[in-house]
Amino acid sequence: MDIAVVGLGLIGGSLLRALAVAGHTVYGYDADPATRATARTAAAQAPTGQRWQVPGTLADTVRRPDGRAADLVAVAVPLPAVGGVFDALGGLGYAGLVTDVTSVKAPVRGLATKLDRFVGGHPMAGREVSGFGAAEPDLFHGCAWVLCLEPDTAMADWLATAALLTGLGARVVPATADEHDRAVAAISHVPHLVAAAVAALAGTDLLAATLAAGSFRDGTRVAASAPALTAAMCGGNAAFVREVLDLVVADLTAARAALDSADPIAALVPWLTPGANARRAWPPRGGDPVQVPVTAEVLLRIGRAGGWITAVDVDRREVTAVRPA
Amino acid sequence: MDIAVVGLGLIGGSLLRALAVAGHTVYGYDADPATRATARTAAAQAPTGQRWQVPGTLADTVRRPDGRAADLVAVAVPLPAVGGVFDALGGLGYAGLVTDVTSVKAPVRGLATKLDRFVGGHPMAGREVSGFGAAEPDLFHGCAWVLCLEPDTAMADWLATAALLTGLGARVVPATADEHDRAVAAISHVPHLVAAAVAALAGTDLLAATLAAGSFRDGTRVAASAPALTAAMCGGNAAFVREVLDLVVADLTAARAALDSADPIAALVPWLTPGANARRAWPPRGGDPVQVPVTAEVLLRIGRAGGWITAVDVDRREVTAVRPA
Repeated sequence: MDIAVVGLGLIGGSLLRALAVAGHTVYGYDADPATRATARTAAAQAPTGQRWQVPGTLADTVRRPDGRAADLVAVAVPLPAVGGVFDALGGLGYAGLVTDVTSVKAPVRGLATKLDRFVGGHPMAGREVSGFGAAEPDLFHGCAWVLCLEPDTAMADWLATAALLTGLGARVVPATADEHDRAVAAISHVPHLVAAAVAALAGTDLLAATLAAGSFRDGTRVAASAPALTAAMCGGNAAFVREVLDLVVADLTAARAALDSADPIAALVPWLTPGANARRAWPPRGGDPVQVPVTAEVLLRIGRAGGWITAVDVDRREVTAVRPA
Repeated sequence: MDIAVVGLGLIGGSLLRALAVAGHTVYGYDADPATRATARTAAAQAPTGQRWQVPGTLADTVRRPDGRAADLVAVAVPLPAVGGVFDALGGLGYAGLVTDVTSVKAPVRGLATKLDRFVGGHPMAGREVSGFGAAEPDLFHGCAWVLCLEPDTAMADWLATAALLTGLGARVVPATADEHDRAVAAISHVPHLVAAAVAALAGTDLLAATLAAGSFRDGTRVAASAPALTAAMCGGNAAFVREVLDLVVADLTAARAALDSADPIAALVPWLTPGANARRAWPPRGGDPVQVPVTAEVLLRIGRAGGWITAVDVDRREVTAVRPA
């Protein structure tokens, strides 16, 4: 495929490299001239046979000199910049397929209504580092990559995008934007809030900070993230973060009741067991792959069951699906 | 010193080995004959000059053939077994100094009223492994080791124990039993409850479990612990766990209010900042060591300030103290 990647940070840069390794023709663009220069230098040093270029404008990134448009534009800019890129693509007359990599999907779905063809995505491939310099072509090997499937998503577009991403080694997870946003509230956004609340205890009790060891270190690691970034992440998904936070507070209130009971130890065991079982069962191990003729409902059921797609046969509209064992 | 270690699990076994390496005469005992046999084999293979023995009875562990008693008995058995060991020491007529390594200090203080001389202790040296086979002589290098200092603690006993432990490389932290129990509620017990509540979310949302990555993995690691052990730990410290859990729930309720506000992102930044600052300042780095003539109040102030003791001059009743930089 002929693909344009807009935004060359960790995710966009890694996508650019991964697509080039997979044999696609790739054009990359970043609004920052210094990032473009770095990416251009890397392109010049890429192994023979890897075709990626870094034009100086968005127009030259999404459209070739002969007027042909890219088959796909992957938008890999931070959420606040996504609307501007979508507008710019419209202004350039780009009517092809667009995908994105943003960590919250319902707001992007709202912005994408102005596009002709859109499939929202989110690779669960965050790292402690950022920027094109940290980009790696194998970042997406084995990585869960949510691809959103809504009532108005064209199945041909979804399958084409899924085929591309499984070709990079990603485990493609079908979900609606709302299902995705609730899930990441549970496994990322609310854990950031909880970590901040626990870490704050060590700020007011210096004896506690000195005694803290492994459980504190791991349990609060993400609390060291920049407050502005965590606030943007949680605030940008406020409805689902609220819903999940209420569940956690209700659960902790039940733990408080167990501590108040006549036999706190006996009362805490059943309270602790669901979390222990869930954590011991994680990460889910996949069962045997099966070939599935797809409809939107079949794909969404696979995602809801914790399953993923490892390969796509676009012509036969069949996928290879793995469900947790 | 001539020291008896009762209980040869990870902590007791490591203490036995560390004391032998430091040149002390050490006798070890475990109620389990198989553990005694393992420890005896290890003793036979210990380098020349390390003197440790594993008698077949508690009596022979705390008293020598000539009738002399050990200078110190370190009780390293789980909390439910501590009272029985204290009773047995009384039954043997042992009237010397006793210390322990149990992870909750107020209940042990209650049990120790039947002993003549007692200094409660707790090394913050937990690991994922257990048993004598996992014991390491350098487990306590740099480890924070709380030594309890109560109004009825004999300063000479406290200093003798502190001198012994700093000799093993431990950072000795003076605290009352209540101060210790509140601190460990904050940095260990409540974090276990919070991890269980977050981990449970992935048990009811299989899509979320499949999308979970680093923040979930680290934030919920301790949720995989055996529910019976976590329940015993939290339930055995119920009063302080309740107090700290209430703080965390109140803090998360404030986060909920921030999410409800007109501008959730702006409201979350100041809510997140104390936790981010506390986590970034952790672990505390020590300032320059200073020599301090000690009283109980001076030592407790060092502990409350997040400081620790690195050396003890028993004769001059002076300690080398380090406070966070």
